[in-house]
Amino acid sequence: MATFVMQSLGCEVAALNTVHFSTLQSGLHPNPDSQEMTGNHTGYRQFKGTRATAQEISDLYQGLCQSNLTDFDVMLSGYAPSAAAVESVGTIGIDLQQKAEKKPGSFFWVLDPVMGDQGRLYVNDDVVPAYKKIVPFADLILPNQFEAEVLSGIKITSLATLAEAVTAIHRIYSVPHVIITSVQLFKLSQSGSTPTPPENFLTVIGSTTRSDGSPRLFRVDIPALDCFFSGTGDMFAALTVARLSEAVTAAGDNLRATKSWVSPDIVAATDLPLAQATIKVLSSMHSVLERTMESRNAELAVAVPAHNGDLTTEEQAKRDYLRQTKAAEVRLVRNTRVLRDPKIQFKVQDWRKEDLPAHLQ
Amino acid sequence: MATFVMQSLGCEVAALNTVHFSTLQSGLHPNPDSQEMTGNHTGYRQFKGTRATAQEISDLYQGLCQSNLTDFDVMLSGYAPSAAAVESVGTIGIDLQQKAEKKPGSFFWVLDPVMGDQGRLYVNDDVVPAYKKIVPFADLILPNQFEAEVLSGIKITSLATLAEAVTAIHRIYSVPHVIITSVQLFKLSQSGSTPTPPENFLTVIGSTTRSDGSPRLFRVDIPALDCFFSGTGDMFAALTVARLSEAVTAAGDNLRATKSWVSPDIVAATDLPLAQATIKVLSSMHSVLERTMESRNAELAVAVPAHNGDLTTEEQAKRDYLRQTKAAEVRLVRNTRVLRDPKIQFKVQDWRKEDLPAHLQ
Repeated sequence: MATFVMQSLGCEVAALNTVHFSTLQSGLHPNPDSQEMTGNHTGYRQFKGTRATAQEISDLYQGLCQSNLTDFDVMLSGYAPSAAAVESVGTIGIDLQQKAEKKPGSFFWVLDPVMGDQGRLYVNDDVVPAYKKIVPFADLILPNQFEAEVLSGIKITSLATLAEAVTAIHRIYSVPHVIITSVQLFKLSQSGSTPTPPENFLTVIGSTTRSDGSPRLFRVDIPALDCFFSGTGDMFAALTVARLSEAVTAAGDNLRATKSWVSPDIVAATDLPLAQATIKVLSSMHSVLERTMESRNAELAVAVPAHNGDLTTEEQAKRDYLRQTKAAEVRLVRNTRVLRDPKIQFKVQDWRKEDLPAHLQ
Repeated sequence: MATFVMQSLGCEVAALNTVHFSTLQSGLHPNPDSQEMTGNHTGYRQFKGTRATAQEISDLYQGLCQSNLTDFDVMLSGYAPSAAAVESVGTIGIDLQQKAEKKPGSFFWVLDPVMGDQGRLYVNDDVVPAYKKIVPFADLILPNQFEAEVLSGIKITSLATLAEAVTAIHRIYSVPHVIITSVQLFKLSQSGSTPTPPENFLTVIGSTTRSDGSPRLFRVDIPALDCFFSGTGDMFAALTVARLSEAVTAAGDNLRATKSWVSPDIVAATDLPLAQATIKVLSSMHSVLERTMESRNAELAVAVPAHNGDLTTEEQAKRDYLRQTKAAEVRLVRNTRVLRDPKIQFKVQDWRKEDLPAHLQ
């Protein structure tokens, strides 16, 4: 998913695959709701494949080094299958940062700290401290709400705690850019004056630090689609790589040659390259997912051919589940036009000062 | 390479990676000429990475089967890193053919029998018999001249022996479609009346059997580019998958629902979907490679930054070699337009009857 999206937007990609599974939708991002649906039937979530070891990841990088193939502009790191693999990925990111030290802005690391969702981890416990060690070397991280809580140590229960979590991430890890990829704002108690979107909306929160380390917060509200899609995290990350790079180049101000691409303090939150990139990213994603839902609905409306022989209730349920999962596969290759040239349909909003906790105002 | 090319042409791809290397150009298709250039310096061709075992390949396929994810229209199989891996890939192809048996034409296997080039094997000897066992289950094979010799047992030294080799491949393996991806016709002795292209041309030879098993031969001559590119075999195969599928659908005659997409005998060689696909494939490839050469030349024209410290002659030669190899990487993602919408610049030609050996006329 991530490789094709970046390639479609004109990026040359060297892909280092950390896993190789028969069915991504079961392997990488188990959906807690669907897991509950499957109850005790572990057979539902079957998949086969291999995980790269930490040594294999390091070896591949050594191979690139030997062949002088490490002049990357951007590194996107996503799911890694163990704490040791996270460390190996971290070592690569840190090495690339060091190699670029004398040319500020010539390398940028986007880190998606894939650990869990909806209040629970789907990686081993030891992956959490492994991420905490490497996040300080990243330029942009893309946690979801749960991962932002894990990294900040702050439970997000309100707009105020949300702002605190972002602030804490900037401060603890010195990471200059953060996007919290999906927050259900309507669930948070209303402590501020910012309008809360209705129940069927999700909110994406982003921030680039000012020179004093304080956050520059922006938000984009998007309608939620009533369907579980697999791979949307990777699509978001890959689009963000391409669009942020474009926006930084377009921003002028020598931003591209500035360490970590941090805009001057005078730039308002909503004018940040990160904010401008985010609305393009979300516009592309929303169009692709809308089209996916249409195709899914059309596919599921077709009658299923009868099966030879009787199926048990369990077999039938499994068959239906697999059919539904397959029908919801993101329709990417036929929708590359909306990846490349999205119709901008969302607005980026500033946070009002009065929505921030007193000590952040 | 193959995955991105097929995706760019609108194919949904499930990729099963048989190798995972840091530098494809050294790992998969060593260029004998370049190897000679490197002499004894084995360090030149260093690369790191992993090869999928036969068991891992089979396991991934089992995973797809369990999740009902095997309704492929086309399978493209390429390089496999051992005889056992070739067998595993073969078992998958054979299983998919059997599953599609009741719906002729619903599955089509394109097999690239990657074994060697320029007169020598670059796989273990036992890979050859492994391919000979599975080729009979393929619908289209894409050998180069050397691989066609290995499979047919006929040394290609003339137009007549070339025709004999294709005929033998049809007959021995009952494989209905063959493309010999690159022949240097000017090197073959002139036994027939067909015009021979000049030295800087390559010829692609294709054939679809008639119902009596005889070949329907066509040829396309293309100017050779004076540069070694890596991955062109995979680009050719991937483009062929997409273009043949289109051409078969466009041909009507219910061809898409005909076993192995074999056109009725009345269809002339030059009108075959395989022939029509081939000129589109070669037009795309030639444009991409021409643009790659332009970019390469521009890149190599830039002065190399001085190195800190003295390099030995050997280190300098290695550095230059790596730089040249990198500069010749096929420029794919910025040239997807010519993949999707090539300017047709080549003609397909029939073989004259008098060019065939007497027993094939």
